[in-house]
Order: sequence, then structure tokens, then C-alpha cells
Amino acid sequence: MAQHDAIPDQPSISHWIEWLATYGQTENGGVTRLLYSESWQRAQEAMKELMLQHGCQVRFDEVGNLFGRYPGREQPKAIILTGSHIDTVIDGGKYDGAYGILASMLAAHLLYLKYGPPKKTIEVVSLAEEEGSRFPFTFWGSKWVTGQVELEEAKALLDSNGFSLEEAMKQAGFGQPTLALKEKEKIEAFLEVHIEQGVMLERKQKEIGIVTDIVGQRRYTLQFQGESNHAGTTPMSMRKDALRLAAAFITHVTEEAERLDESLVATIGKVVVSPNTPNVIAGGVECSLDVRHANVAYLDAFEKIVFDYREIAKKQNMQMDINRWLNIKPVHLSDKHVQLTRQQAEEAGFSYDVMVSGAGHDAQVFGTFCPTSLIFVPSHKGISHSPEEYTHWQELEKGVEILKRQLYTLAYE
Amino acid sequence: MAQHDAIPDQPSISHWIEWLATYGQTENGGVTRLLYSESWQRAQEAMKELMLQHGCQVRFDEVGNLFGRYPGREQPKAIILTGSHIDTVIDGGKYDGAYGILASMLAAHLLYLKYGPPKKTIEVVSLAEEEGSRFPFTFWGSKWVTGQVELEEAKALLDSNGFSLEEAMKQAGFGQPTLALKEKEKIEAFLEVHIEQGVMLERKQKEIGIVTDIVGQRRYTLQFQGESNHAGTTPMSMRKDALRLAAAFITHVTEEAERLDESLVATIGKVVVSPNTPNVIAGGVECSLDVRHANVAYLDAFEKIVFDYREIAKKQNMQMDINRWLNIKPVHLSDKHVQLTRQQAEEAGFSYDVMVSGAGHDAQVFGTFCPTSLIFVPSHKGISHSPEEYTHWQELEKGVEILKRQLYTLAYE
Repeated sequence: MAQHDAIPDQPSISHWIEWLATYGQTENGGVTRLLYSESWQRAQEAMKELMLQHGCQVRFDEVGNLFGRYPGREQPKAIILTGSHIDTVIDGGKYDGAYGILASMLAAHLLYLKYGPPKKTIEVVSLAEEEGSRFPFTFWGSKWVTGQVELEEAKALLDSNGFSLEEAMKQAGFGQPTLALKEKEKIEAFLEVHIEQGVMLERKQKEIGIVTDIVGQRRYTLQFQGESNHAGTTPMSMRKDALRLAAAFITHVTEEAERLDESLVATIGKVVVSPNTPNVIAGGVECSLDVRHANVAYLDAFEKIVFDYREIAKKQNMQMDINRWLNIKPVHLSDKHVQLTRQQAEEAGFSYDVMVSGAGHDAQVFGTFCPTSLIFVPSHKGISHSPEEYTHWQELEKGVEILKRQLYTLAYE
Repeated sequence: MAQHDAIPDQPSISHWIEWLATYGQTENGGVTRLLYSESWQRAQEAMKELMLQHGCQVRFDEVGNLFGRYPGREQPKAIILTGSHIDTVIDGGKYDGAYGILASMLAAHLLYLKYGPPKKTIEVVSLAEEEGSRFPFTFWGSKWVTGQVELEEAKALLDSNGFSLEEAMKQAGFGQPTLALKEKEKIEAFLEVHIEQGVMLERKQKEIGIVTDIVGQRRYTLQFQGESNHAGTTPMSMRKDALRLAAAFITHVTEEAERLDESLVATIGKVVVSPNTPNVIAGGVECSLDVRHANVAYLDAFEKIVFDYREIAKKQNMQMDINRWLNIKPVHLSDKHVQLTRQQAEEAGFSYDVMVSGAGHDAQVFGTFCPTSLIFVPSHKGISHSPEEYTHWQELEKGVEILKRQLYTLAYE
């Protein structure tokens, strides 16, 4: 069993991040905590200890989301929830998810030390899962908390070893029915801080990102069908080269994406050529396509461009098949929270940018359920899902400071 | 050990093809005879039996090329050599190589039956290797016969199991010094018939292809270097998408190939994307490029277009590296043979097309050594290097007929 650091004596966001990263630490200096794995279990247990040491009431829900509560003294059933996810991708970074949980814990604790119990309940949440790295399902934790998924829908999902989500959950000690919240308790707001996972804040030299919208995402698998043939004996004019068709498609859709709107992003990141042999004309090509925008109208307009390309394939006597397998709607976050946070950033003297998140976050699940705020701190070089993920401790502390101010306004005033 | 058919009683090209295909037959109905493998050894031994049964003098040379000779009665030291290669690709067809050997044996034998010993020596050759499917070296057999390779150059080459060519050769019983030819013997001509491995004869409904040139081939590995980044958080304008660059290159060079000359072929058949993940912008792409033309000037002109593309990569702050790892010069075959064969095809009443070979053949090695002829028969749908390879027996017989007429003119008249 790996050695873990003891909980640091002094509450400090950077020390806490290093400490939590020892749970699931990889040889590369990254972190792997797949849902319900041993490292994940130990990390949630460690978080539970941290919460207990800092005076929280602690509970797990049925699927393994961990909550640490400072009960409200005036309106205990009104809950201000704050946190992020404990799981990581394989060999991910120390900050993605973990920062949001620990920043929440630290902000809530510092407020508690200074002002005593809040008026409304503050609850820190370490969500079980967001990444979809073990099972083909994302936002398991936040969807469970917000009642957007049933166990029936997900329990039979298999990981790459053929383990079902239900088996894995039971082995980790979860799966017993519980009440997610006590009667009449209500989540009044959800607050999340996260690293940006992009370069915009660093490039613009801004300290805080205030997110207004989380983009919608559509993902497609595209199949281009031509005809394999001998590279030497088939004249150019007689070819049905699926790779040439796919290449023209890539050029076309990336140009169209730029033309349509500057905040639309369209990515072909994966290409599988068949038979993928230097002296054989490609008979088939499979491409991924990932498209994101905060406005459904742009996603629709772009989708039409993609589907229209089938006509070009047909004219070349080839075939193009399109399978859209993911369609996540854009989420518009609370305008009231955005307004509030702008004020607080100004009061704190932090530079900020009001922005759209191109990546998915737990906040997008909560965003359709209750007033939700999502705050970013810079990611060095935009690197994420990698051991190279890095944010300077001073920047981490600014995120904690904003969260403290938000929690104060929502739970103490 | 697999069961093999006995040598058919009646000499017939289609029966012989089926018989030889039992040596190295695969479950798919294909043939696998890698150089010096057990199935290869048994096939050469079977060919030796066939030659002996049909009255040839038989010998192997040092590297395993098999010769069956009808000695000339007037000019025995003047050799008309005819044949092709015995080896196959993995799970290849029954006709590629084998047809040329068996057609030569049949043509020579039929002439011998009818006219007795030739004036000049006719020698049928079953060449050890052409495909390069076991060791990374092609035309081992023909290069040996024509003195274009030394054992020193090739003996240390390793197959995919780490076996050296020399070890494999010795295990198969070869590698002892021999004299390839007796003193003052001279190969005066080389004749090969082969399936076209392309669709031109079938499309044009021609019975015989008379080859004037075998294309030169250049092969390149291209590396496009960009920058991996998050597909959601990196605006289009900030990307260094190596796949987008590679796609534009594919479109550019295939268009330029068409523009340059209708008989130029340029193929990108293999693409490897890194990291090849749907939601990550491609940081690197490796592409193959295979270019063929019968005229070096066109190969040079096209190469310039490829190299010039590096400037476009540079303008996009990306990098393109080009490695040319193969450069086979075009070979112009004997005009005299072409003229002779046209006459003979007309006399035989066969339709024919005078054409360039886009695929490589043993004839290209002999073509720089002695007057050489290469004749094609149609390949159904152009399919080759596959169990689906097929040519109708009547078409096979027409190739034998042309070969008979060529051999008669060269060795009997």
C-alpha cells in the first residue's frame, strides 16, 4: 500500500492539494483515481477525515458522494452546496476536481473559524465521479445529487475489465438506499471553483474567470466508405479514396467552424484508416468530431454543414455515414451569481474575465437544478488531464478567496 | 503436414495453379509462402519435381533460385530465361508470381514437345523472392541472378521473429557458394508473364497487356508537428492542429498529382494521429506517401511540390518533416520485345493494350541487365495480394500462348 502524507497541520490550499494527490499518485507524478477503485476509496476516506478534523458533520450518500456539513443556525434546511469531483482521468493532474473540493473545504472552514456557524447550512461535497474514465458515463455524482439519474440506468455499465458499475459500487461499500437529503432540505445554490483547463486567463493575464455559460457538446463518429485498391495500378481518376474524402471534409468543416462563429470549436481528434497500409488506397476512414458552442442555434447550423457533406461524398461515388452519439445541451449559469461574483472580484482587487467554459463541469449538471456559480483560476499553458497540470499557489488562493466571499454572502448575510 | 495434390496428369495452366497453391494454402483460401519458410521449401521442391517430370535439367543456385533447363542444341550458352517468383505476401493469391513460373514451364514444355530441343537454351526460373514480405528487402531472387546484390548486403537482415536471412537460408539448405552460370553462359533475354494487379485490362476489355515501362517508386514518411490541446477550451484561432495541416496536405498533393500528369499516382495510405483522442487536438500526424511514374522528371517535379509544403507548415507555426526512404528508378523495357510482342498478339488474334506497369516486378530488375519483356493478363477487379485474386483460365492460357510465341522466336528461330 502506498504511503500517504498526514493531513497538513496548517490549513493551506497548496499543502492540501499535495496531500490529496498522494492518493492515487502515479509514477509520472500524476494522479489516477477511477470511480470506486482502491485509490478512490482511500481518497474519499481521507477527505472524510479532513472534514471531521475541521468540525464538519459527515455523510456519504448511496453512490459514494461525500458531504461535510456546517449546519445553519437560522435556516438549517437551506443548503449552500460547494465542491467538485474526487475522481480523475488516468494519469491526470492534481488540480482537476480536487482543487474545487479542497477550496470549498478551506473557504467554509475559514468562515466558520472567523464567524462561527452560518445562518444557512454550508455543505462541502466531494462528488464521486465526473470524468467518465472508468465507466462510459459522466457526471455520475452530480446527476445523482440532483436526481437526474436512477441507479437502474447506470448499474449495468461495464468498465474495461468487464466489471459492472453496481459490482464496483458494492465492493466500495455503497449501493444501500439512503435519503440524499433530509425531508424538506433544499439545495439553494451550488458553487464550484475549478482550474480553467484552457489558456485564456493566462494569455489575458486575468486572475479569475467568471463563467456565464457552459458550452453544449455534440460528438459524432463519421464513416467514410470508398474502395481499397492498389496504389500503383489504380489511376487517380479511378480511385475511391476514402482518406482523400475525409481530408477534404476535415478542411471543409474546420473552415466552416471558423466562419460560423469565433467561439465555435470543432475538433477531429481521432482518425482510423483502413487498411492503413502505405501502398494501398484507403477503403475506409473513421473520424471523430467534437463540436462545442454555448448556443444551440450554432450547434444546429454546424450540424447541417456536417450532414450536407454527405452529398459531396455521394457525388464522388463514396459514402459518408454520421452517428451523433453525444448531445449535451449548453447550460446558462445564474446571472445573479455572475453579477455578485463580478462585484466580489472587484472588491477583492482581482482582475477577471467573464467567459464561457468550453469544458464540461459538475456545475453544468447543477446549473439546470439550482442557481449555480462556476469560477476558474488560470491553468499554466492550459494543460490539463496530464501530470503537467499546474496552477501557482497564489492563484489557487485567489479562487478560495472568491469562494469565501460568495459563501459569506449566500450563507452568512 | 498439409496434404498436397499430386502433379496433374495433363499439363494445364489452371490445374497447375491449383496444384501449386496447395503449398502454403491458408484457411482463407489464400497462399502464404514466405522466403525460406517450410511451405516455400516444399513449393520449390514441388517445382523441381514438375521440372524433372517435364524433362528439364534442374539446379538451385546459392540463394535458392530454382532453374529448369532445356539446353540449346546450337548455342547452348545463350540463355533465354523465363519465369517469376515463388514467394507470396502473407495470405496472398494463387496467381501472383506462381502464374509466371508455371506459364513459363508450360510454354517451354509445349514447345519442346512439338519442336524438340531449342537452338538456344531455354531456362525456366522459379525466383526465390520478390515481395519483401519476410525480410525488409525486395527482389532478392532476381537481384542475385543479375549480380545486383552480394550476400554481405542482405545476410544480416532480420525477419519479425529476429531470424536473420542467412540463418533462414542455411536452414533451408542454401548458402553454399555456387556458380550462378557456367563459364561464358549469357542470359540473352528475360521474359515474364504476370497478372496485371490492376483494373485497366478488364475495364478496356483487353486480353493482353504489353508493358513498355515499369514505374519508378518513391516512398516517404511525413511528420506533421503541431500542439496537442483541449478540444473545448482552445479557440480555433489559437490551435496548432497537426491533423488539419495533414488533411490540407493530402488534398493539396492529390490535386497536384492529378494536375501534373494523368499517369502519376500519389497515395497517402497510412495515417497515424497522436494522441488520437476525440476530445484532444492532434499534436502530431505521421503519413505515408507513395508516388509512382515511369519518368523521373515527373517524380522530381512532384517531390518539389511535397517539399515546398514545408513552407505552408512553417507559416502556420507548425513543422513538417519529410523522410524519403525508398527511391526505385523507372525501368524502360526492350522496345524490340514490345514490337515483337505486338506482332505476335496480332497474329494470335488477341486484343492488347500497350501500358505502363504501376506495380514492381522481377522484370524491372532484369530490365537493367538484359533485353526484357513483361506481359500482363487481366486481374478480376484488379484485386491482388488477397485470396480474392482471380483470373479466368482462358485468360491465363492466352498469356501462355504469347509466351510460347516469344520463346519460339527467341530460342527456336
